[in-house]
Amino acid sequence: MLPNHDALQLDAHGRLRHFLTLEGLGRPLLENIMDRAESFSSVTEQTVKKVPLLRGKTVVNLFFENSTRTRTTFELAAKRLSADVLNINIATSATAKGESLLDTVRNLEAMHVDMFVVRHAASGAPHFIARHVAPHISVINAGDGRHAHPTQGMLDVFTIRKLKGGFAGLKVAIVGDVLHSRVARSEIQALNLLGVQEIRVIGPRTLLPAAVETLGVKVFHTLEQGLEDVDVVMMLRLQTERMSGAFIPSVHDYFARFGLTGKRLERAKPDAIVMHPGPVNRGIEIDPEVADGPRSVILQQVTHGIAIRMAVMSMAMSPDGGDKTA
Amino acid sequence: MLPNHDALQLDAHGRLRHFLTLEGLGRPLLENIMDRAESFSSVTEQTVKKVPLLRGKTVVNLFFENSTRTRTTFELAAKRLSADVLNINIATSATAKGESLLDTVRNLEAMHVDMFVVRHAASGAPHFIARHVAPHISVINAGDGRHAHPTQGMLDVFTIRKLKGGFAGLKVAIVGDVLHSRVARSEIQALNLLGVQEIRVIGPRTLLPAAVETLGVKVFHTLEQGLEDVDVVMMLRLQTERMSGAFIPSVHDYFARFGLTGKRLERAKPDAIVMHPGPVNRGIEIDPEVADGPRSVILQQVTHGIAIRMAVMSMAMSPDGGDKTA
Amino acid sequence: MLPNHDALQLDAHGRLRHFLTLEGLGRPLLENIMDRAESFSSVTEQTVKKVPLLRGKTVVNLFFENSTRTRTTFELAAKRLSADVLNINIATSATAKGESLLDTVRNLEAMHVDMFVVRHAASGAPHFIARHVAPHISVINAGDGRHAHPTQGMLDVFTIRKLKGGFAGLKVAIVGDVLHSRVARSEIQALNLLGVQEIRVIGPRTLLPAAVETLGVKVFHTLEQGLEDVDVVMMLRLQTERMSGAFIPSVHDYFARFGLTGKRLERAKPDAIVMHPGPVNRGIEIDPEVADGPRSVILQQVTHGIAIRMAVMSMAMSPDGGDKTA
Repeated sequence: MLPNHDALQLDAHGRLRHFLTLEGLGRPLLENIMDRAESFSSVTEQTVKKVPLLRGKTVVNLFFENSTRTRTTFELAAKRLSADVLNINIATSATAKGESLLDTVRNLEAMHVDMFVVRHAASGAPHFIARHVAPHISVINAGDGRHAHPTQGMLDVFTIRKLKGGFAGLKVAIVGDVLHSRVARSEIQALNLLGVQEIRVIGPRTLLPAAVETLGVKVFHTLEQGLEDVDVVMMLRLQTERMSGAFIPSVHDYFARFGLTGKRLERAKPDAIVMHPGPVNRGIEIDPEVADGPRSVILQQVTHGIAIRMAVMSMAMSPDGGDKTA
Repeated sequence: MLPNHDALQLDAHGRLRHFLTLEGLGRPLLENIMDRAESFSSVTEQTVKKVPLLRGKTVVNLFFENSTRTRTTFELAAKRLSADVLNINIATSATAKGESLLDTVRNLEAMHVDMFVVRHAASGAPHFIARHVAPHISVINAGDGRHAHPTQGMLDVFTIRKLKGGFAGLKVAIVGDVLHSRVARSEIQALNLLGVQEIRVIGPRTLLPAAVETLGVKVFHTLEQGLEDVDVVMMLRLQTERMSGAFIPSVHDYFARFGLTGKRLERAKPDAIVMHPGPVNRGIEIDPEVADGPRSVILQQVTHGIAIRMAVMSMAMSPDGGDKTA
Repeated sequence: MLPNHDALQLDAHGRLRHFLTLEGLGRPLLENIMDRAESFSSVTEQTVKKVPLLRGKTVVNLFFENSTRTRTTFELAAKRLSADVLNINIATSATAKGESLLDTVRNLEAMHVDMFVVRHAASGAPHFIARHVAPHISVINAGDGRHAHPTQGMLDVFTIRKLKGGFAGLKVAIVGDVLHSRVARSEIQALNLLGVQEIRVIGPRTLLPAAVETLGVKVFHTLEQGLEDVDVVMMLRLQTERMSGAFIPSVHDYFARFGLTGKRLERAKPDAIVMHPGPVNRGIEIDPEVADGPRSVILQQVTHGIAIRMAVMSMAMSPDGGDKTA
């Protein structure tokens, strides 16, 4: 009996099969993913960056929601693993002829592709696909609704591990629009699994989920209090595009109360790092001088994102690379 | 003197040069295409799927009409042959600056590409291109107007050959919107060439071409009569997007009269197979329980489509692979 | 001290690092680019066209302005150098979420890409990017506003060198809408550097830049006078899409005065060649019988464009390939 067994994401030996959410995964598996990313990370700093682990495999970027940024990171990761990549933007294609999600998947499956990287506005869409694909196909969640964005969660903790050397004793603050963020949920899951000392969530009541405390975090409603003595500040984007009418805060007011300025950052530890999943709204959730300042590790997150995606994709594809974690 | 010589599609030795229509091709060539697809077919069921037959070649998907589905199958087939693939969607590009079809072709030709896969709303566009390209370039028709979709026709007969072992003695019914279908025309040509016993066409008068009988088929206006004792049922999509106002049948009425249900399928032979070129309109031309049932080979058609496209592309590109068929 | 040193485009050894404009580059470097293109040129006429010079490298086509035509030539050139290519059309992506040009560049840079091919409606955008990228990344200008299109300029002079054997003693006429042309500016720079005998500019006053004489050209306002005794006629597109209201000439009047006809071409030398950057407006700036006639080398320009782009990309990427030109 595996303590962290997840019938959908892991095979009978506890190896990664799909990567849909961090929920249900154990710390050893997360460590394995980061170890493998570490190995690619050193590779990506050399001249010849490609490894042949997915040579002859076909990765399909199946995007039901446009995101050039995320698509690019997965396309790059797949190509560096020597896979062939098919980009399919469903918003502009098959569904116009009335084809269902399942039909789309079944058809691509019949073309003997090997992996789906799925982005969808509906929470749970990647799980739905994972439940229905053939045994040899892996599904990677590239963001579903407000639910999860697990490779982003992994690259965030990987960045912390590289810069802080580990997780024990760390205090981490997640700041801003948690309510509309699929990233925050994945980050909290990963940080809990990896055993940081304390996770704080900082934001206005209107932008925090109702029962956020039940996720194992401390809640603060002012940056001044919340940032006190933290090691890591994880900023979130203010996702006004997901808000409706009355609940959209004034950008000016928001920055006045929750914008991360150099002054406010002084509350944190002297060696605290500042993270952001991008794209950054300068002057809204963060002062440009902080976003582009010496404590910012935002661009290192992007670099680590490629390595993490290479790690997850290669582990999901190769039975041996999936590393037993039981 | 070659009996099946076609000045545009075949070279002086009867080898495939362009693949525009099944008209004018001989049975030996069709058999050769299927034999080669068979060889790729076994390859595509293994782990390493790529073959190097088109390494260093550039295949251009030249789509004047959007079709993610068809583009994907050709892109995949080309990549599995190790070709480089350029996707050009002309609806959104050069023609905006007033460039003509011929200019577009001449320019790409001057870039030394090796193959055009052409999709166009106008019947005959791929033939036009084939008549004007340089000798070393091959043109593959990926669907032109209502005229032809020859790789679809080939994958259909290939599916029949694999599942029925051959064509002699078979009765095949083609059901539905024949009028707007480029697939049906290609299917009828292929089935005639390969010598099935009987081809039936079933549909309402308004959705059958005026002189359909001249194609060498028997015409039926009810499913009940038409399906009697057939070995293969080839369903067509109801292409309402190609119909104008008054002639669009009520979807409900259409299903009542021509929808393929389990009950109606009982008229066919007990081992009859059900085919559909996709995308499937469930509940319009076919009952979901039939489309997804045990007699359906719809997804096998998709799989065979990759192998057939690999076969046609590789034969057209290599003089030796083109197999003398005289 | 290098006579043609350009702090942004060349490294300390005078080797190509970015390719933004022909301004400031020396004749030896231009000759080197053409020599290298010559070597690829012979390669592109053989069956196996690919060379492994950029294997493992990632080239990003960063297009802020749609141009399938230009994008295609760079994508093809990059693939023939065995690079991986990422196509990013920014009009439809990141900027929608408010990301700045610099953020886009910084993010891609953090993904360890190797080259940006930049197309932008604003003059100077590629220079801006070149000033801010990491040292290992090269920037190639694929057309910025009305400013420059240096690979087009290079392919034009390369075509002249191949067909005329050199530049000494040549008279070259540039005809038409110089005002809106980024090509003309790059062509004039290149022709001046390479030492042609005379550059003429022919066009109506309204379509010539105010101080065009200062570029080192002779100005003519009739084709009849301007074409007298020239060796090369470089036509430009009438870019009505860049003109506003009152200044758009009647297409009919324009052809009557400045359209290149067979009759007018008789003024030029008997072996004069006719060039055009494409796409050609037949019947507007040029008579179809000239555009498609025996003196036209328009399609050869397209072929040479691939070789020139391969040359520039490979020189910018490899320190040794960048050829000292001091």
